[in-house]
Amino acid sequence: MKSVVVGIDVGGTNTVFGIVDKDGNFYGEGSIPTQAYPTFNDWAQSIHDAIMQTLKERDGEIELTGIGIGAPNGNYYTGHIENAVNLSWSGNVDVVGKMKELFGNDKTAVLTNDANAAAVGEMVYGGAKGMKDFIVITLGTGLGSGVVVNGQMVHGYDGNAGELGHVIIEKGGRKCGCGRNGCLEAYASATGIKRTVFELLANENIPSTLRAFTYNDLTSEMIYKEAVAGDKLALMAFEETGKKLGQALADFTAFSTPEAFFLFGGLAKAGSLILEPTKRYMEENICIIYKNKIKVLLSELNDKNAAVLGAAALAWSELS
Amino acid sequence: MKSVVVGIDVGGTNTVFGIVDKDGNFYGEGSIPTQAYPTFNDWAQSIHDAIMQTLKERDGEIELTGIGIGAPNGNYYTGHIENAVNLSWSGNVDVVGKMKELFGNDKTAVLTNDANAAAVGEMVYGGAKGMKDFIVITLGTGLGSGVVVNGQMVHGYDGNAGELGHVIIEKGGRKCGCGRNGCLEAYASATGIKRTVFELLANENIPSTLRAFTYNDLTSEMIYKEAVAGDKLALMAFEETGKKLGQALADFTAFSTPEAFFLFGGLAKAGSLILEPTKRYMEENICIIYKNKIKVLLSELNDKNAAVLGAAALAWSELS
Repeated sequence: MKSVVVGIDVGGTNTVFGIVDKDGNFYGEGSIPTQAYPTFNDWAQSIHDAIMQTLKERDGEIELTGIGIGAPNGNYYTGHIENAVNLSWSGNVDVVGKMKELFGNDKTAVLTNDANAAAVGEMVYGGAKGMKDFIVITLGTGLGSGVVVNGQMVHGYDGNAGELGHVIIEKGGRKCGCGRNGCLEAYASATGIKRTVFELLANENIPSTLRAFTYNDLTSEMIYKEAVAGDKLALMAFEETGKKLGQALADFTAFSTPEAFFLFGGLAKAGSLILEPTKRYMEENICIIYKNKIKVLLSELNDKNAAVLGAAALAWSELS
Repeated sequence: MKSVVVGIDVGGTNTVFGIVDKDGNFYGEGSIPTQAYPTFNDWAQSIHDAIMQTLKERDGEIELTGIGIGAPNGNYYTGHIENAVNLSWSGNVDVVGKMKELFGNDKTAVLTNDANAAAVGEMVYGGAKGMKDFIVITLGTGLGSGVVVNGQMVHGYDGNAGELGHVIIEKGGRKCGCGRNGCLEAYASATGIKRTVFELLANENIPSTLRAFTYNDLTSEMIYKEAVAGDKLALMAFEETGKKLGQALADFTAFSTPEAFFLFGGLAKAGSLILEPTKRYMEENICIIYKNKIKVLLSELNDKNAAVLGAAALAWSELS
């Protein structure tokens, strides 16, 4: 019997899972729509049933030993999802407790936020294999981060460490979803680059295909497409985003001096368009003792499976 | 025989040592002038001889098991002091290697920078006892820091982590000793508050006793004395220093979410004059998920012995 864990990625739209062994091989996968269940208990029952069905298909071949869950606002210490704004359940829900109730108390169940799960995934299955100090920056709708120090996830005193999207990089700058102004994620994220495009559309006079889009319609993928096609304003937006992110990474280095930063998520798919200016501005702004020492890399995890692999890796690192 | 270690604090002026047991009791202490020795080898021989002499006085009662050293630019991984600008030896010197050569290879010898040593001291002997996540901020001539995560010192990939004095808090701001502009230590340190006084003297019209001092003569102790005596400009300087430091601590929280920040060193002796505005501005600027959770405290280590205790604690934590 092969030992496997299930990695569960709780997204705003879908909850995706995969049955994964220690080497990252998949033995089945599936998903349910997160918002289709009015209560947390209904959602939990449904994801449990879907996983059990998938396990049944490999009956006698694999044995479930752990459950790893990555979710927005997932707290490693409490095992609760705490007021996740993009999920339909309000209040705090005890995910780990519920999973143990459904799958059995003999199973290891562990929860963390999605960016931390991505970092554990990078460490176990991705480009951070063998690294003891690194930081994963997830560039999605917002900016999340997972910090690893001495080979361990940094959860902090209350389980909320690694919220680097909420470091203030421009005093009195752009309004952030957290209620403050000038947070990094208001500049360096899929939403941030869109805001930068609209600032550039206002400030610059050069022609751009992006002048034909509404704020509601424009996505970071479109900006990427136009940049690749040579649109100067789209290219400026990537330059500006990399500048803000690179300056921030220079400061983060003074904290934990990682061997590498890994860029992950939607905006990281732009590859060198985001990587190159980020690296350049990081080096330009970094303290001399760190110059030319710190890598900035793209995540090596297959984007489709990354979140699920991260959640599975979390379960494996808890089991070991 | 009582097991003891020697804690050595290498300062720009004096090298101070203390023979310390696991509970922090002293069995002897001494010092040599750091700059009196033209070469590193001479200095090492001299501090060795002074320690051996002190140990001899308690012969048969105590047994030396380890040597802990705190020094500017002391690197935990390499055991070297790397280009310490305020010491007279140039280049890199192998402190750990030399200590083992002099004291014997059976002894544990360990080096770190002075701020990290202060953090280990706070953890073993001071206010951070029992805490797993905290940050010590040393407010001396510059701003140093020691970051503890999951109960472990954060040394980072290259041994140079925890240089929070070199996080840029004002783009294009004050010139820093590191060659860049706007580093935190140019604002929050004994030198930083003096620079703030001179900025206030230029910008404000109010009378102040501080108008009688030259830049060369003014010290942070004098600013403290005038603030206590009610000088408005001196009070403004503390307010402004606490503002800059508090805003920075709010951002640092998003990184490792410490249970507490400890303020240590010369400027921390100003007590509530620096503590109160630092705490207030931290809370005012902190992300909502951290509000009213993070303590800002004064170091509990006796300032005279703190650096030596920190170095001793480092040896003890290496031995255990």
